[in-house]
Amino acid sequence: MTQALQLAGRGLYTTQPNPRVGCVIAQGEAVAGSGFHQRAGEPHAEVFALREAGERARGATAYVTLEPCAHHGRTPPCADALVAAGVARVVIASDDPFPQVNGRGIDKLRAAGIQVDTGLMSEAARELNMGFFSRLERHRPFVRVKLAMSLDGRTALANGESKWITGEAARADVQRWRARSSAILSGSGTVRADNPRLTVRLPDEEAFTPPWRVLLDRQLRTPAGSHVLDGSVPTLLLHEPSASCADDRFGRVERIAIATGQEGLDLAAVLALLAGRGCNELHVEAGPTLCGALFAAGLVDELLLYVAPLLLGDSARPLLHLPNLTDMATRWQLQLIDQRVLGPDIRLRLRPG
Amino acid sequence: MTQALQLAGRGLYTTQPNPRVGCVIAQGEAVAGSGFHQRAGEPHAEVFALREAGERARGATAYVTLEPCAHHGRTPPCADALVAAGVARVVIASDDPFPQVNGRGIDKLRAAGIQVDTGLMSEAARELNMGFFSRLERHRPFVRVKLAMSLDGRTALANGESKWITGEAARADVQRWRARSSAILSGSGTVRADNPRLTVRLPDEEAFTPPWRVLLDRQLRTPAGSHVLDGSVPTLLLHEPSASCADDRFGRVERIAIATGQEGLDLAAVLALLAGRGCNELHVEAGPTLCGALFAAGLVDELLLYVAPLLLGDSARPLLHLPNLTDMATRWQLQLIDQRVLGPDIRLRLRPG
Repeated sequence: MTQALQLAGRGLYTTQPNPRVGCVIAQGEAVAGSGFHQRAGEPHAEVFALREAGERARGATAYVTLEPCAHHGRTPPCADALVAAGVARVVIASDDPFPQVNGRGIDKLRAAGIQVDTGLMSEAARELNMGFFSRLERHRPFVRVKLAMSLDGRTALANGESKWITGEAARADVQRWRARSSAILSGSGTVRADNPRLTVRLPDEEAFTPPWRVLLDRQLRTPAGSHVLDGSVPTLLLHEPSASCADDRFGRVERIAIATGQEGLDLAAVLALLAGRGCNELHVEAGPTLCGALFAAGLVDELLLYVAPLLLGDSARPLLHLPNLTDMATRWQLQLIDQRVLGPDIRLRLRPG
Repeated sequence: MTQALQLAGRGLYTTQPNPRVGCVIAQGEAVAGSGFHQRAGEPHAEVFALREAGERARGATAYVTLEPCAHHGRTPPCADALVAAGVARVVIASDDPFPQVNGRGIDKLRAAGIQVDTGLMSEAARELNMGFFSRLERHRPFVRVKLAMSLDGRTALANGESKWITGEAARADVQRWRARSSAILSGSGTVRADNPRLTVRLPDEEAFTPPWRVLLDRQLRTPAGSHVLDGSVPTLLLHEPSASCADDRFGRVERIAIATGQEGLDLAAVLALLAGRGCNELHVEAGPTLCGALFAAGLVDELLLYVAPLLLGDSARPLLHLPNLTDMATRWQLQLIDQRVLGPDIRLRLRPG
């Protein structure tokens, strides 16, 4: 299963909106075939593994990181393929919450007399597809907020200058988190201040499915000519229902009206919309207001915090706008998941505690 | 030498104001004797090692982490003892900058026909006594600033509440950094707000020389009855020349007038005073004003930063007051020396880059 999970990870940047899945077919200690899902519309992991195994699949054990599918999607059901190949046993790391699978794959296998065991390394398998599980189980994406700051928690000088707080290694690392995401969310303030592209830049040999860009631009104030409006990747522009724009600057993006909440757009509605469109992992690169609002609303699943070894002082810009706390007991508590040194900087990864 | 350095480290909390020194006497691969300096006034490392080696010191090689002393202090010169014991060779990690030694120990050994080699693991040896070297070479202590903050760089809520940002493991770790210091520096604002004891609390079996307390209290505003005035450890209260106090609240502390600088007391003068009194490592636990002033003046040698996995928001109190920067090139650049997870928190150690 460890090997199947490693294989699944090779689809990290490309399976969107599908889950990352790996499969190993074993005859005793020997691997007869293996494969992983690479891209939506292309064969699933089990198909590649069965093809490689050929006749050696008969009587073998298949290790699959996710419950085999039971329905005809863009490809025929993998459960049927496993039955047809004559495997004796299927070991599954995690159930597939997808409504058209959700136990039916397992039922099909068992009905055909195959021994099915579930739950082996299920935590690692869920972790690999945290976005897919979040979308299907919670009807919202897994939300990862990326922030880069100085040691004293500042993201830019008072005059707005922020290039560069972190070093090259940290900035290259960010590209990998962008690449694994279905979409990158930002706000109009960040777009106006920095005119970012919000695209993925990886070494040429590395394939990825470009994440969509999602911009919260309540009053449609994104300036004409901004990079995010260039249509180079699918882009959603979310605005309040009453906003309008006379010119054609938004011709290459999709505009969607969202109800407004207490402050700005209704963030829960934004996440529901994105989940409905197949967004698994949402990568947020925005300013202190939008990021703070996501934290305050309890909508952040992971904080990816790059800390640069420098001090900017208390007149520099704060990391997050959050409501004033009067009691330490009400603080936003997180938990450190891992830390890694990246060149001169350090990356902390945290989740709600 | 590695073993000698480890031995030297056993004096980490006790040798004040002396350096930490270890000595190993070797006959080929075998250790004939070893020792370390434990406490000022007590024998030096070489003496313990020679005692243990006895006759086996003759023709042996002595590994010493610091140049053997050549003068009569509270104990006779170690260089003489090494000569008398008949060692054939002395390997020294770092020179002793102490004016009465500073090469004379080496000269004495060589004059007696002993082979002397220097510089082996000198970096580690200097690191062990960074405060001692700082005091003798720069005439000021090695200044270590300890700060504890949330992920967003905040040290307390807007209402001042700060108990507790970090967990028990981090707070226990702080005690060890206090214990190795000659003195703990704080400001009157911190004393008024938190009434800290600024003493060391270590497990009973661990010996330490209590660091002095040093308080910057420009206008003598420390309230009567503050823990820092209780006389439980030597305490210096530094104030501006014109300040006075009518009552006897300062009866158990030593008051010293210091010239005022641009803002508050002249910090360079404070450090010079402390060095003159034998302060090697100065541990700073103070608020954003004093800590910021030390950084702004370029007087900080190490930042010990405890980061707790929580968010307090931008209305909470900042880490450091620093002058406004208008250009990223003038930021205070540090370098990450190490990082360690302590319970739920992480500790970063940094030095000027």
